[in-house]
Amino acid sequence: MDKLKSFLSPKSVAIIGASSNPAKLGWQILSNLKSAGFPGDVYPINLHETEILGFKAYPTINELKAKVDLAVIVIPAPFVLEEVKKAARGGIKNLVIISAGFGETGKAGRAVESEIKKIAEVNGLNILGPNCLGFINYRAHLNITFANTFGPEEGKKNHNIAFLSQSGAIGSAVLDWTKNKNIGFSLFMSLGNKAVLDENDFLEYLLTDTSSDLVVAYLEEISDGRRFLNLVSRLAKIKPVAILKAGRTEAGSAAAMSHTGSLAGGGEAVKAALIRSGAIVLNDMNELFNLMRLIKKPLNLNNPDLYLVSNAGGPLVVSVDAIFESNLSLPKLSLDQKNKIIKILPSFGHVANPLDILGDATSERYAQVLGVLLAETKVQALLILLTPQSGTDVKNIAEVIGRFSLKYPDKLIVTSFIGGVAIADGKKILAEYLVPNFDYPEEAIRVLGHYLNWQKNKKSLVIYKQPKLISPRSKISGLWDYLDTKKLLDQYGLKTVKTVRVTKTNIQIKYPLAAKIVGPTVVHKSEAQAIFLNLKNEKELKKINSQPLLKKGANYLVAQEMIADGLEIILGFKRDDNFGPIIMVGWGGIYTEIIKDVRLFLAEDNNHLIREEIKQLKVYQLIQGARGKEPFDLEALVANIKKLVLLSLAHPEIKELDINPAFISPHGLVAADWRIIS
Amino acid sequence: MDKLKSFLSPKSVAIIGASSNPAKLGWQILSNLKSAGFPGDVYPINLHETEILGFKAYPTINELKAKVDLAVIVIPAPFVLEEVKKAARGGIKNLVIISAGFGETGKAGRAVESEIKKIAEVNGLNILGPNCLGFINYRAHLNITFANTFGPEEGKKNHNIAFLSQSGAIGSAVLDWTKNKNIGFSLFMSLGNKAVLDENDFLEYLLTDTSSDLVVAYLEEISDGRRFLNLVSRLAKIKPVAILKAGRTEAGSAAAMSHTGSLAGGGEAVKAALIRSGAIVLNDMNELFNLMRLIKKPLNLNNPDLYLVSNAGGPLVVSVDAIFESNLSLPKLSLDQKNKIIKILPSFGHVANPLDILGDATSERYAQVLGVLLAETKVQALLILLTPQSGTDVKNIAEVIGRFSLKYPDKLIVTSFIGGVAIADGKKILAEYLVPNFDYPEEAIRVLGHYLNWQKNKKSLVIYKQPKLISPRSKISGLWDYLDTKKLLDQYGLKTVKTVRVTKTNIQIKYPLAAKIVGPTVVHKSEAQAIFLNLKNEKELKKINSQPLLKKGANYLVAQEMIADGLEIILGFKRDDNFGPIIMVGWGGIYTEIIKDVRLFLAEDNNHLIREEIKQLKVYQLIQGARGKEPFDLEALVANIKKLVLLSLAHPEIKELDINPAFISPHGLVAADWRIIS
Repeated sequence: MDKLKSFLSPKSVAIIGASSNPAKLGWQILSNLKSAGFPGDVYPINLHETEILGFKAYPTINELKAKVDLAVIVIPAPFVLEEVKKAARGGIKNLVIISAGFGETGKAGRAVESEIKKIAEVNGLNILGPNCLGFINYRAHLNITFANTFGPEEGKKNHNIAFLSQSGAIGSAVLDWTKNKNIGFSLFMSLGNKAVLDENDFLEYLLTDTSSDLVVAYLEEISDGRRFLNLVSRLAKIKPVAILKAGRTEAGSAAAMSHTGSLAGGGEAVKAALIRSGAIVLNDMNELFNLMRLIKKPLNLNNPDLYLVSNAGGPLVVSVDAIFESNLSLPKLSLDQKNKIIKILPSFGHVANPLDILGDATSERYAQVLGVLLAETKVQALLILLTPQSGTDVKNIAEVIGRFSLKYPDKLIVTSFIGGVAIADGKKILAEYLVPNFDYPEEAIRVLGHYLNWQKNKKSLVIYKQPKLISPRSKISGLWDYLDTKKLLDQYGLKTVKTVRVTKTNIQIKYPLAAKIVGPTVVHKSEAQAIFLNLKNEKELKKINSQPLLKKGANYLVAQEMIADGLEIILGFKRDDNFGPIIMVGWGGIYTEIIKDVRLFLAEDNNHLIREEIKQLKVYQLIQGARGKEPFDLEALVANIKKLVLLSLAHPEIKELDINPAFISPHGLVAADWRIIS
Repeated sequence: MDKLKSFLSPKSVAIIGASSNPAKLGWQILSNLKSAGFPGDVYPINLHETEILGFKAYPTINELKAKVDLAVIVIPAPFVLEEVKKAARGGIKNLVIISAGFGETGKAGRAVESEIKKIAEVNGLNILGPNCLGFINYRAHLNITFANTFGPEEGKKNHNIAFLSQSGAIGSAVLDWTKNKNIGFSLFMSLGNKAVLDENDFLEYLLTDTSSDLVVAYLEEISDGRRFLNLVSRLAKIKPVAILKAGRTEAGSAAAMSHTGSLAGGGEAVKAALIRSGAIVLNDMNELFNLMRLIKKPLNLNNPDLYLVSNAGGPLVVSVDAIFESNLSLPKLSLDQKNKIIKILPSFGHVANPLDILGDATSERYAQVLGVLLAETKVQALLILLTPQSGTDVKNIAEVIGRFSLKYPDKLIVTSFIGGVAIADGKKILAEYLVPNFDYPEEAIRVLGHYLNWQKNKKSLVIYKQPKLISPRSKISGLWDYLDTKKLLDQYGLKTVKTVRVTKTNIQIKYPLAAKIVGPTVVHKSEAQAIFLNLKNEKELKKINSQPLLKKGANYLVAQEMIADGLEIILGFKRDDNFGPIIMVGWGGIYTEIIKDVRLFLAEDNNHLIREEIKQLKVYQLIQGARGKEPFDLEALVANIKKLVLLSLAHPEIKELDINPAFISPHGLVAADWRIIS
């Protein structure tokens, strides 16, 4: 954080490429810096001008003798590298490169970007960008962007959101969208190509920043996944962190790759990582915008229950569907609440949560009902719906709600006024009271779902510890030898079925037994028809010796004990370059691919987290002991996965490890087949 | 349809409860009728007035000698029944009951509503409501609502949407929302309590109505499910029918029940029915509103592919995620298109669909690129994204897009301009050109997904034929006898395993065999431990004779052939009061409940539809012959389900029939256990 202090709150700023032409970015940034009221020193750098916008200008950064905390580079790409070098020589530690034309344009651009990166490493520079919009630090009166966002309306806003965007376009759309709304940023960072500084540097800064109540990030690729997980899980224990990860789907991931020119890393590992991080995982831009609408202040709700009041049954029913789908609950009203509300509603009204206060509800009825509900401590989150019906005094109702929001500042009061012309004035009043209003109840509920579930889970969120990275030990490339693999599993205490190489002497395994042809040409044993179960005697075993597969290369035959019963489980891991080993556990056996009952999660030395993953499986119902059967040994499964975690962390050379099947019984777990690829 | 002609397009309207007090609904409706320019005769009925709003008033409907095509009742509930009787006596065939206070208020209200219903049946009356907003028929200049929607702006709108709403509140919100937008209704029906007329009557009318390009319905319960399915499937072959069914979830369904006081019928049957109907099944109110934004005219697109153009990579990636999730495809650009576009973009641009025309795209670049794309016939649906960046000439780009929409009236051109202040003018221009614009690309894509998939599927949509309803034949109530059940299955040609009652004489089934205790106290055989598999000889069979379960009541023992192999399938049906038998097929055996690989669909005598359902199952991968195995007899499964369909339709007394397991092999299907409950 200290590292970024002079970057984010510099005392002096030089703008390399400042211009006196208002059509140029170099003018716009200087002008925005000025109108933001930046109290430090400002040095426009321009070859031809002596003064711009009242600031004395310098022909080159070299001529400037004063200390510069931050230099902003906004000149054509071909000239950027030279300026970075000059800045480094001049002892400037912090740079923002607005200019585009680097990694995003292809090979040549990537090469220049690499050089910039090297200079930064050697000289310990902080560089934001290139190819970015710049940044805004509201409390430092600093606007290093060409978006004019410090207009008079900004002063009225509560600047409580930190926003990080890998996309300049989404960044500028967000700035534009918030302009005439009461949504303000404490920190706005356009990350650009992330050549040096990336989201993690700012997430780390935000850990000690007290000016933001919400952190929102739009990301196309996650930099240093393990550091990211550690930082997000620490931050998400303190405040909501919401992430829109573009390229969530396979198709989107491919599009992101072609757009950013980098491996976007979509797919299962990212999904598992985001869930693990404790972040609010946003599904779309609508949710991103709506979450910024929702969070006006830090709240500490000690229950995630939602109360719902509506003057119309239809929207109420639609809302209950959405509440159910958002994994929220509608608790019952207390007897006391019921008794009080019965007296307020017409005789045929049905008193419950959700509460329909009927189409003829006036502001008075809204006031009475809301008064009863909010008086109870356990009512902490309340969604109020309104549709304009005959006799609905919309403006007064908005006033009533606004006043309650002031009276109960520690509760979350949210509205959805549905309609157009008839509700417009009511919406204005709600906005003045800072009551978040949503066009449709489901939109409100979706972000309430995200937020309330974050409130609920933050306490039990476990901080992700970055594993120590060690160097690969083995030089094997490809499929491991079967018995070597067994040895490694045994070494980590994973129980494996008795297995011996079949030679001419006694094989020391009782019949019936299983035989398998193993070796370099047998990658998928079932497909290769290399498995022979239930061999009853030596004669049957010997017959296998004539299999052509056994003659190939270094293949050989092993015999294994047959396992009589138990449930088939698949376990293993696949290494992700960014997030490390991704552990897999699921329903094993021949239908694994079809049933697809599998959980993928990060490798962590934590029995609790492992157990919670197993509990999400369908096959867990069988492990528990379905249909009155004795339960299987869940703890043996947990313990074995933990061993696998330790193995995966200690052997970075292993790309993939599969155990399928392992047999779980009431008395333990034993692996019956395995495969390692490095 | 003829039935509703004089209802929807009356030549004369009486308003019972017309008032001279502008605060009253009776004044508002009269006033709205007047300002809509209704050309027919209007008769206010009011005890005290002689003239209201320039119309001669009558004290009672009896005094009015002229013929009245339609009477609107807007008086307090206690007086409504008497007026309905009077109207019936006076030969008035069409009524709208605006008044609330009937079925929705409880038992007493329901009783009055029943009486109204009876009068309607006896006298052949069409009654809309009670407890409704009324209706609008735009082309007949008829506004029988208290919402003033025929303002000057209405004349400019294209009134092309038919909207049916079971909720008055959602109806009024929709009317209010559309007021200052270019969205107009050809027909707006507030269904209220649906005492007599329901959605089906209007869906039938819409089959021959040419004024609507889109039908939207908000429903809490579906009236006469089988008629509904027939009508919607016929209508959906002609034009898009979109349904928002409140109470989709279990929780929502319970809320709808308490709200409407009726069995809302949520759950699986409704879900299966809606999908089968060919309707666009809306997920939320946002989609409902957005679909009305999307459809400005009837289009006949002969491919459902989407092309995507954006000046920003971020929103483009986010969009690809949504496109993937909406089951849409982005076809590749043709070589010709690519060659042309390469010349337009900067050298580092990546030419593909989705197409990023880069952040510095001007209106000229938009025009060139869109020109190339739209010139190709196969480009029929195009989504254009814009974020305001430095140099983006938003208004000109909107103009360019607007002009293309005029040039290509048979294509679907949709935009998402993302932002706030900077795009406001552009949005206005798009609106003038009737180009649908959405705040976020994912919102556009979700409704595009609905619409384009409807375009794709409408040709192959099979019209649902209402089965003839017959009376139940059997008086059995509860569990059927095991052998009687077998007899019925045999009678319909469903192959069952050889089964005999075990007596002292030879049982004529070879060992090993299966034995089961069956009878009135054995509902779930596995749970009751009433199944004995693999009995090897008479001695083992005889041992079962001592089971206490066998001594209970009329229980007895049967012996069955053991089936050596095959795959276990579950099939059966459950009768839904509204939609008839819901057929079930899925992965059978002991893990059925855990794997939950089951399809539920309506009973129809159509092999193609049955086969398509089976293909959705996970177990279909095994049926096809996984891992190089011989395929199982799919056609035998189809044929057996068809037999089950016929059985289910012919035996309305059967509430539930389960066959679990049936064994499918490469050579057929045979049922091994069964159960019928009536």
